[in-house]
Amino acid sequence: MKLDPDFIQKKSFSIIEKEVSRPKRFDDEEWRVVRRMIHASADFDLLDLVLFHKDAIKSGVKAIKNGCYIITDTKMALAGINKQKAKRLSVKLRCFINKKEVKEIAEKKNITRAMASADFSLPLMEKSIYVIGNAPTFLMRLLELIKQERTAPHLIVGMPVGFVNVVESKELLLSQNEVPYITVKGRKGGTTLAVAVINELFEIAIG
Amino acid sequence: MKLDPDFIQKKSFSIIEKEVSRPKRFDDEEWRVVRRMIHASADFDLLDLVLFHKDAIKSGVKAIKNGCYIITDTKMALAGINKQKAKRLSVKLRCFINKKEVKEIAEKKNITRAMASADFSLPLMEKSIYVIGNAPTFLMRLLELIKQERTAPHLIVGMPVGFVNVVESKELLLSQNEVPYITVKGRKGGTTLAVAVINELFEIAIG
Repeated sequence: MKLDPDFIQKKSFSIIEKEVSRPKRFDDEEWRVVRRMIHASADFDLLDLVLFHKDAIKSGVKAIKNGCYIITDTKMALAGINKQKAKRLSVKLRCFINKKEVKEIAEKKNITRAMASADFSLPLMEKSIYVIGNAPTFLMRLLELIKQERTAPHLIVGMPVGFVNVVESKELLLSQNEVPYITVKGRKGGTTLAVAVINELFEIAIG
Repeated sequence: MKLDPDFIQKKSFSIIEKEVSRPKRFDDEEWRVVRRMIHASADFDLLDLVLFHKDAIKSGVKAIKNGCYIITDTKMALAGINKQKAKRLSVKLRCFINKKEVKEIAEKKNITRAMASADFSLPLMEKSIYVIGNAPTFLMRLLELIKQERTAPHLIVGMPVGFVNVVESKELLLSQNEVPYITVKGRKGGTTLAVAVINELFEIAIG
């Protein structure tokens, strides 16, 4: 049994590439991200489901190289992002869902805590990448705020998963072209996939 | 848009049940767990892939009701488990992967940190449920320790994901019948699914 993590990752990527050919619609760096998502899920459906805004990788990698904030919808997403590489890149990781102020905003406005945590993040928005693997209401609120407040993040990794509000939230994301995004069509998505995207963008940024 | 989380979860379950019929091989509580896993991934392949040891739910729920330890392979899995419900059930959540002692064990024995964290957990093993969504080497080492040390946990939620060592680790899990397990056949698995299992076992335990 081979135990070296770098060896295992390389071997995994080479197995994926042996089993499927890279779809032509992905460029080199987009394919690295998709391959990493397949590595994290063993789900080859992603070949057809992942969508990139044309500036997504460029804008995301540039922001990461400049030490942006990364704001996640859940503590689980925060926990999955590579801390050592974030530190090396001076990227600052944040999740506001458990903040007292967020609870107060949610109660006052009668919205979900996920939505309230988007509201709370507003002062950081233009310095940030957003990572949403779980809460469609966070994604919807984020898009609303972008419109209302005439501000925007560098990238939205918008891939909530599930059966209610999820497809609708992604349609909203895809209906705009101003903010770069990476998403997964339809119901699929999830924290594991969103985290895989960020960890691969770190690798691309480190070079 | 409906925002109440309980409403959304119920609605999601009813969508799943409208689209597929419950496979006969699952009893009521097993189906609750599988349905929750589908809810967390939107992946209907799980209908064919999830496998339960015959005592898995019974043993897991009993341990949870008795306030067992839950030991995870990653911080991400730890972060995904419902803290409020764990507290209510007096369940104690642990992940040893970043412990100094684990790093030392890994270096000394020339094994992965995941394996070393299984070694480190040995004194708690018989009071624990193990949750493995990522590291096949953790699962393999755990099975080795169970044999060597003649001890055993209450349940193994053993569903690492990926292309190297993963299928092998699950075959080892399935080749024994003494320790109850819940697993996903083949390459699929992951932290999101493992966490969904535990959070549904909490619901069953709460009743």
